[in-house]
Amino acid sequence: MNKQELIKQIKTKRSFLCVGLDSDIKKLPACVMNSDDPVYEFNKAIIDATAPYTVAYKPNLAFYEATGVKGWISLEKTIQYIKDNYPEIFIIADAKRGDIGNTSALYARSFFEEMKVDAITVAPYMGQDSVSPFLSYEGTWVIVLALTSNPGSHDFQLTKDENGEMLFEKVLRTSQNWGSDQNMMYVVGATQGKSFENVRNIVPNHFLLVPGVGAQGGSLEEVCHYGMNNECGLLVNASRAIIFADNSDNFATVAGEKAKDYQLQMEEQLKVHNIV
Amino acid sequence: MNKQELIKQIKTKRSFLCVGLDSDIKKLPACVMNSDDPVYEFNKAIIDATAPYTVAYKPNLAFYEATGVKGWISLEKTIQYIKDNYPEIFIIADAKRGDIGNTSALYARSFFEEMKVDAITVAPYMGQDSVSPFLSYEGTWVIVLALTSNPGSHDFQLTKDENGEMLFEKVLRTSQNWGSDQNMMYVVGATQGKSFENVRNIVPNHFLLVPGVGAQGGSLEEVCHYGMNNECGLLVNASRAIIFADNSDNFATVAGEKAKDYQLQMEEQLKVHNIV
Repeated sequence: MNKQELIKQIKTKRSFLCVGLDSDIKKLPACVMNSDDPVYEFNKAIIDATAPYTVAYKPNLAFYEATGVKGWISLEKTIQYIKDNYPEIFIIADAKRGDIGNTSALYARSFFEEMKVDAITVAPYMGQDSVSPFLSYEGTWVIVLALTSNPGSHDFQLTKDENGEMLFEKVLRTSQNWGSDQNMMYVVGATQGKSFENVRNIVPNHFLLVPGVGAQGGSLEEVCHYGMNNECGLLVNASRAIIFADNSDNFATVAGEKAKDYQLQMEEQLKVHNIV
Repeated sequence: MNKQELIKQIKTKRSFLCVGLDSDIKKLPACVMNSDDPVYEFNKAIIDATAPYTVAYKPNLAFYEATGVKGWISLEKTIQYIKDNYPEIFIIADAKRGDIGNTSALYARSFFEEMKVDAITVAPYMGQDSVSPFLSYEGTWVIVLALTSNPGSHDFQLTKDENGEMLFEKVLRTSQNWGSDQNMMYVVGATQGKSFENVRNIVPNHFLLVPGVGAQGGSLEEVCHYGMNNECGLLVNASRAIIFADNSDNFATVAGEKAKDYQLQMEEQLKVHNIV
């Protein structure tokens, strides 16, 4: 999916919500556990309930790998289900991969040729040749970790270099030479508040994938205040706050309601910023 | 496997060779391609031929994920084969994972509870809570990327902070507080030559996993000169230079000979450093 198509979806659905399919088998409601593939059953119900309010789904690979081969089967089926039923929705493999060049090329093959997702998250520590192989595909995206939402983001990402530039700023500045705002996005955590201003100074036009709203405590309004540009430029992710909002037989309906709550808040922000 | 058992293996086999099972299905010899599971057939033959000279195997996950579910099945079977037939050999999942705390915990479950490997490689960009969950298991190891072997290692890892400390040095220094030399190792590329001295100044006692000898051009002698400590403290990895040394029906025999070549060079170094 290219940038213009993504922006069109955002305007049509009046939403920039990304639903994180962090479908931990240990947290699923009892009513799906009799299925042959509980994770897939759960995901299908969540997807059907949330799709009207959602422009992107983001399965985090950890929650699938946790059960080995079974988990990979659930993941492949889930991706296919989205593609078959909601082809307008952007799919992000939250994998945080990154390796030496020839090896990253293999990861790219896995995610873009086998699974056919739209985007993959990548860690920047190993530099250009670990990221570039993901950029050689048409119509797909690399989402580079810049400033993450977790406490450990302070350990290295905020380290200032000799010129006073923080590591996450250097990652943003340097990596712009590897791709463009048509095939790269950046992860910036909603918990980082005012740092969004620094981010937007360096990458005014790139889309940002923003985790940390909801369970991690980030504010949607603050994210939009500092991070939204005139094409929206944001995909805001919520995972647990939507998919595990309810644990009864009614889980999917409640997830849909939560997604709609986010959508309404997002529509308000899109109006404030004159995008819809 | 604990540190003393690993050192004992190194002394017994007079080797600190780690064979990288980067078994790219597109590079396998024709003679295994009629099998139901060519990657597993190839790995079994490589393992049987190289095990006498090897203290560790390191499958890089990228080469298994590249074929999706099939690849994960090959990987799980390969790990089980090593555990059943060569229980004394250390198994490293070269996965370069790392995510927010609750998510890294899921990766840890996958690799340490499901696959039961001895060690996993982890990227440090997201800081302490992305690494710590891997440290809560008994007898397993986290191998943190410090200074990698690829050209992109220069993009961020060598960036000096305000105090003149390079990022990889800060990673080494900071992460020592998260674990100990009994459950953490570091990746330091063989192509980094004299930088090993800096590494050993900061982490004198930790084992280092050293890729980049062989196809990437690093020198074993140089690595040992700067990196070996009085417990050896090195696992030197070779992948393509061993497993793809020959592409005929004779591939496994040639791989065994290459592994033996490395073992003999390593024995020489262990003698020079008075370890055997």
